[in-house]
Amino acid sequence: MRNYTQTLDHFNFGTNSYDTFLQRYAISFKYWGGANTSSPIFVSLGGKGEIFINEFSTSFVITKAPHFKSLLVIIEHRYYGESNPFGSKEEAYKNSSTLQYLSSEQALADCAQLITDLKKNLSAENSPVIAVGGSYGGMLAAWLRLKYPHITIGALASSAPILYFDDITPHNGYCNVISRDFRESSESCYRTIKNSWHQIRKTATQHEGLTALSQMFNTCRPLTSAKELVDELEYIYFVNAQFNDPLTNPVNKLCEAIDKDPHEIDPLRRIASGVKATNGFSKCLKVFSVEEENESDRLSGWSWQSCTEMVMPIECMGNEQMFEAYPFNFTDYTSWCKALFNVVPRPHWITTEYGGRNIKEVLKDFGSNIIFSNGLRDPYSSGG
Amino acid sequence: MRNYTQTLDHFNFGTNSYDTFLQRYAISFKYWGGANTSSPIFVSLGGKGEIFINEFSTSFVITKAPHFKSLLVIIEHRYYGESNPFGSKEEAYKNSSTLQYLSSEQALADCAQLITDLKKNLSAENSPVIAVGGSYGGMLAAWLRLKYPHITIGALASSAPILYFDDITPHNGYCNVISRDFRESSESCYRTIKNSWHQIRKTATQHEGLTALSQMFNTCRPLTSAKELVDELEYIYFVNAQFNDPLTNPVNKLCEAIDKDPHEIDPLRRIASGVKATNGFSKCLKVFSVEEENESDRLSGWSWQSCTEMVMPIECMGNEQMFEAYPFNFTDYTSWCKALFNVVPRPHWITTEYGGRNIKEVLKDFGSNIIFSNGLRDPYSSGG
Repeated sequence: MRNYTQTLDHFNFGTNSYDTFLQRYAISFKYWGGANTSSPIFVSLGGKGEIFINEFSTSFVITKAPHFKSLLVIIEHRYYGESNPFGSKEEAYKNSSTLQYLSSEQALADCAQLITDLKKNLSAENSPVIAVGGSYGGMLAAWLRLKYPHITIGALASSAPILYFDDITPHNGYCNVISRDFRESSESCYRTIKNSWHQIRKTATQHEGLTALSQMFNTCRPLTSAKELVDELEYIYFVNAQFNDPLTNPVNKLCEAIDKDPHEIDPLRRIASGVKATNGFSKCLKVFSVEEENESDRLSGWSWQSCTEMVMPIECMGNEQMFEAYPFNFTDYTSWCKALFNVVPRPHWITTEYGGRNIKEVLKDFGSNIIFSNGLRDPYSSGG
Repeated sequence: MRNYTQTLDHFNFGTNSYDTFLQRYAISFKYWGGANTSSPIFVSLGGKGEIFINEFSTSFVITKAPHFKSLLVIIEHRYYGESNPFGSKEEAYKNSSTLQYLSSEQALADCAQLITDLKKNLSAENSPVIAVGGSYGGMLAAWLRLKYPHITIGALASSAPILYFDDITPHNGYCNVISRDFRESSESCYRTIKNSWHQIRKTATQHEGLTALSQMFNTCRPLTSAKELVDELEYIYFVNAQFNDPLTNPVNKLCEAIDKDPHEIDPLRRIASGVKATNGFSKCLKVFSVEEENESDRLSGWSWQSCTEMVMPIECMGNEQMFEAYPFNFTDYTSWCKALFNVVPRPHWITTEYGGRNIKEVLKDFGSNIIFSNGLRDPYSSGG
């Protein structure tokens, strides 16, 4: 891992704008054909998380590196992993004043500057650059190609929901795709989950109901509300569907456990069996209070980004999905953001800055050499 | 003239970033075919100055409006004219903290947001937008097309020196083109100017020399240094060449007056005649002390932009030009910026953000529909 001295604020030139911070990146010369050849540079853009050196051996694109004799670079996104301005994560996430430099535009400018400098230092100004990324990193890869065509000649954006903004895509998309994933795995599993929410709420109101639920789901501490259980179960379904590795197939595993016992008539016990089967190494089911969730959100870079520009209107409504009805309500969303960071989200900014509705025409003219790959079982594929 | 409530800071989302300001724009429906036709919207981007309503009748593009049945819009650039954040120009130009939001990136985002909102309000989402501008406004028009292809389908950029950055274009270009303009007008005029600098400096060191020069050039107050006169003369040559209206042709007018009297042997008296002939309505020649120039620079938005990102390395060196030798020295340039605004310029940022060197390849792929028009007598054409 290396550090690059990065400009904190690329767009404003005020009092603090000449501050810099150390941005982490990794580089591998193992397969590179060299600066004087036409060998490309594959730049993998980190998203909402730390980067790891072993990405050099696991990524799909990297497997193509020997063939293309490419130089490999991984760039960590500002404010994630070790690339924190202001020294520590605590300082960087302190308030809206320290978090203000966390945005997709600044992140793209970071990549532009780092790549330009790196090419200069390697005398590789003529080497073509391909940007690569998945999920949020995939959006950045596509946007880097669109916004900095002089820096990248192409992009491979995997599972990048660049259309899940504003009203471009139906708000139900995310929940509908997850629900379809479960339904395709097993119709009875889908029905069991769909009917469980009412049952959980009802049980919780009964005498000793929360205690019974806590025992049934083996929660790490006694539940204090039905919501705590509902949130955690939804989270488990989201995660299993979104990171549904075809080799291990956690959705199938979960559904198989739910469907397993033909004699079980209590749908909640079925769900509990399913959760146990996919809960991995945890001995008990973690549950979080509203205060704990808020504290965790406050320290999440993605919450900040969601509360400023990355407003993805995800809702779970209608008959085609298995979750508890959850509308997207911008007023509530704004209250949540105000309470967390004292900011008001800008729901129309991403489509103004990067386009959206007319993306096909723009791509025809402009965004040549962008490959969007989407797993149809990925819930974000509805916006990809 | 109308006002649009514009976002002050499009890219950072911190404490003050939800501030807005009133941005001026003008709109004319006179020729418009309407929202449901394919009539285009011509958007003229203001540069470093106020916008005027009479631009609707004078601009070249506007003369094409009846033919295309186009809607006409003129947008004033933030911090120029009446579009000052913080109420007044005095407040907006107070220091680097209030000036920090004056940048080309923010200005382009202003246009993107205003155009998007305007089209929505007019139900003209499908109307094609052509961006138009000259000089700095022309750079913005080209960059708007490059960076916001989903918002503009084309651009007409007149006299836009988008390559006069970094080391893309020879630093001598600006001075060489002006000198060529004068030389093409008259070889003896060019020689007279070229030889005058030494003469001015020599005269100034003589007893009562400054008094003699003050009288000869009819300065509005007595000169206190040769530099005051040199600066003003260079400024006059710059301005006359850059805004060399073919109808009035001030360069020819100036040279004719310099060449006029066959009996005049003093080159300075010849220069004085030339200046008088083009000095327009001023009764005397204005001269500025270093302090006055600094104060005027401090209140110039373009000085701020030059001291942050718009670093155009203009120098007057070598035998192909008629000015006093003036090297571009980045250290001196930085000292000037530090003294004026307490900022350090970023000379490589514009080429990182907008490209430059490989502009031709990028244009081939991406920047279709950009017309760059350059008057070859315009000194900025060397970077256009």
